[in-house]
Amino acid sequence: MEPDTVNSSQLQSPQPHPADIAESYDGLAPEDRSALPGTLGEATLLEVITFLSPASGLDLLRRCTESIQTVLLDRLPADDLVDILQEAGNARRTRLLQLLPDSKKRIARSLLDYPPDSAGGRMTTALAAIRPEMTIRAAIDQISARSERSEVLSRIFVTDRSGHLLGKLRLRDLTFNRRSTHIADIMDSDTLSIGARDDQEEAVRLMSKYDLLALPVVDKNRRLLGVITHDDALEIQEQESTEDLERLAAIAGDSQESYLDTSVLTHFRRRFVWVLFLGFIAIISGIIIYRFESLLEAYFVLAIYMPMVVAAGGNTGGQAATMVIRAMSLGEFPPAAVGRVAWKEARVGMLIGGLLGIIVAAQIVFFLPVESDLPAGRSFGHIAVTVGLSLFIQIITSTLVGATLPIAAKACKLDPAVVASPAITTFVDISGMLIYFGLALWLLGV
Amino acid sequence: MEPDTVNSSQLQSPQPHPADIAESYDGLAPEDRSALPGTLGEATLLEVITFLSPASGLDLLRRCTESIQTVLLDRLPADDLVDILQEAGNARRTRLLQLLPDSKKRIARSLLDYPPDSAGGRMTTALAAIRPEMTIRAAIDQISARSERSEVLSRIFVTDRSGHLLGKLRLRDLTFNRRSTHIADIMDSDTLSIGARDDQEEAVRLMSKYDLLALPVVDKNRRLLGVITHDDALEIQEQESTEDLERLAAIAGDSQESYLDTSVLTHFRRRFVWVLFLGFIAIISGIIIYRFESLLEAYFVLAIYMPMVVAAGGNTGGQAATMVIRAMSLGEFPPAAVGRVAWKEARVGMLIGGLLGIIVAAQIVFFLPVESDLPAGRSFGHIAVTVGLSLFIQIITSTLVGATLPIAAKACKLDPAVVASPAITTFVDISGMLIYFGLALWLLGV
Repeated sequence: MEPDTVNSSQLQSPQPHPADIAESYDGLAPEDRSALPGTLGEATLLEVITFLSPASGLDLLRRCTESIQTVLLDRLPADDLVDILQEAGNARRTRLLQLLPDSKKRIARSLLDYPPDSAGGRMTTALAAIRPEMTIRAAIDQISARSERSEVLSRIFVTDRSGHLLGKLRLRDLTFNRRSTHIADIMDSDTLSIGARDDQEEAVRLMSKYDLLALPVVDKNRRLLGVITHDDALEIQEQESTEDLERLAAIAGDSQESYLDTSVLTHFRRRFVWVLFLGFIAIISGIIIYRFESLLEAYFVLAIYMPMVVAAGGNTGGQAATMVIRAMSLGEFPPAAVGRVAWKEARVGMLIGGLLGIIVAAQIVFFLPVESDLPAGRSFGHIAVTVGLSLFIQIITSTLVGATLPIAAKACKLDPAVVASPAITTFVDISGMLIYFGLALWLLGV
Repeated sequence: MEPDTVNSSQLQSPQPHPADIAESYDGLAPEDRSALPGTLGEATLLEVITFLSPASGLDLLRRCTESIQTVLLDRLPADDLVDILQEAGNARRTRLLQLLPDSKKRIARSLLDYPPDSAGGRMTTALAAIRPEMTIRAAIDQISARSERSEVLSRIFVTDRSGHLLGKLRLRDLTFNRRSTHIADIMDSDTLSIGARDDQEEAVRLMSKYDLLALPVVDKNRRLLGVITHDDALEIQEQESTEDLERLAAIAGDSQESYLDTSVLTHFRRRFVWVLFLGFIAIISGIIIYRFESLLEAYFVLAIYMPMVVAAGGNTGGQAATMVIRAMSLGEFPPAAVGRVAWKEARVGMLIGGLLGIIVAAQIVFFLPVESDLPAGRSFGHIAVTVGLSLFIQIITSTLVGATLPIAAKACKLDPAVVASPAITTFVDISGMLIYFGLALWLLGV
């Protein structure tokens, strides 16, 4: 160790860390990928697979001999195994399942029943469960006999004979108490848990709220099935934030792969549908402009502020939607709070719209950027009132729609982020044109 | 326990969980907040504070008597204590520091030196550190003597006499080995760590990549200072994703408080500046339309496709920027990869722009939504070519700008998300108008 060089990702061992091998795997040429099983030991291969995405894990597995495959499949933690099986096609999945020993085949089959984004689809079954009537000595013996299989020892669960969750204790409670103590005397009877069919996002919310290292997953009879661990929580959260961000940018579908590894065609497929849809929606705005041709001919100066009215709506509606979607995905409020949210956004919209309207109206009266003729009897004061009032109305409606649409989507069990982006854009583009030209027609006439 | 009701957030104990008290705290009336210190024991109060945001923790602390304050401050984990002190104004911070015992005052002062979003500002100092020459028995005695103070036992660190990090071991290694074993024989000499002044985001990246429960934080001489734990990692990740989302929606500044608890004025302040700025940028687009008055008079049908050309740029630029920003914040590629990213986006842009251009051109020729006159010698085929080609060029430039601007911002040490949103909107709005009207003027003439 060199005490005066600091490198946060420096590792002492000369062989690269399995996580580093996994990180570079997707960038390797096919022949280098195929060479890996020959150069790494089975233990390292196993670790590399746990750090790979399911798709890449399957790819690496495919490049191993059947005897290595058998060893790896048997020793893979159940959650990683199931992720890989979910990735495989039907034929390959059946073939891989045949390589498993019977006990593990049963576990894998039961886990495959849960949707991939449910708590059951995420959990690992390699946990330590003991009985309340045991002594610490007996518990330690039981756990160490199986410790090979128990990924998760940071929390040890206590169940009755039929597997119902009774409580939990920490490994430190075993370590720092007399070995003759009974588990029942030191366990904590907290049975906070999540149902196997509940959403993985709910699992992260609970783990984050209660600062949990591990969250037990139970069936509908509260029997302990598995556990979701801190590293799953980080992964789920990462995945869910990426999803929210992408939905808000009108990107469809999911990608397990990194940006650079995703093919041009996949990028195209994920983006084109929304671009096409939103493009045709924009034609409606165009048709509205076209219909107001005579108004624009009389007051062509209105064209200058048209993009501003539309943009102000898009920006304020997008801001409101983003804050509300984020707050909901952090579990800050339920759909029932829609009234409080709307009242807050109405006031924020009045402030933003009022101030922006006044500033722009003043700018029109005092520093108009072009010279323009107006019909007799009309002054730039009239134009200023039209533009200012349009901004005010457009921004209030946009903040209201931006904030309430995602809540309505959530209440209808739709993904708020998917609905928000196109619906708000559509709405504010068209509402902006109608408010602007409608007000102008009413206030100015043709 | 009722075995046939399942409620994932159900807790067995009759008193509410401190995390639940904390969750409802911000919604309580001031007099109910002030009543809390009288109704909860010190131990519960302490736990509630660790679950509160620093601002609310400070608020609750303020409502306690000085004697309770002294107990709470002394027993708060160092990281929570420092978060609260950072939140307090100078005068209050000095007063609170005076209530601390000397040893803790020193720790707090040294932690206050680190920026709040650095690894040092996030770490807790309550960790278990032992020496390699100890036996397991001696290590267990030392740790249990201090276990009150050691928040983190999931990873136990091994240091030399001067505190240099030598390696780590798991609590299970102490539990499942003979008590006469020496630490040196069972420790793992992995010294992966992060510097105290490094960014908290880098800490999460390492913890997520290597599936770590706890990441040691060291000074520039690699002496162990503290540790970042799994719950910090979840919190940091949550905070950073919120930040990215908000930046992309043109929302300025940070908020520690939840959406509903943030005042209307604060919401206004965080959103108005960008709305104003982007609004005035939109006037430039308006002036461009105004300057092309004679072109529009001759071909008013061009107005119909104007919003579409602009929207297609905004949508595809936003998609590209979002994917690149997300990929960079997950550490997928460094700024040096700009060439590969640009080449990928150029191809994606050509596909999207090409297909959209062809679809829209066909639509103009076969299903034009309005009846319109054209100057002599010009057909709707000319309009179709103009619109289709504009979409093609606009979309390619937008994906390129959307993908490369955030990388350029990162290379200049700016926050990619802050720069991306306004810069891309500005660029594609103006470029869209210029490409569209410029091409029209060239292909159609006036």
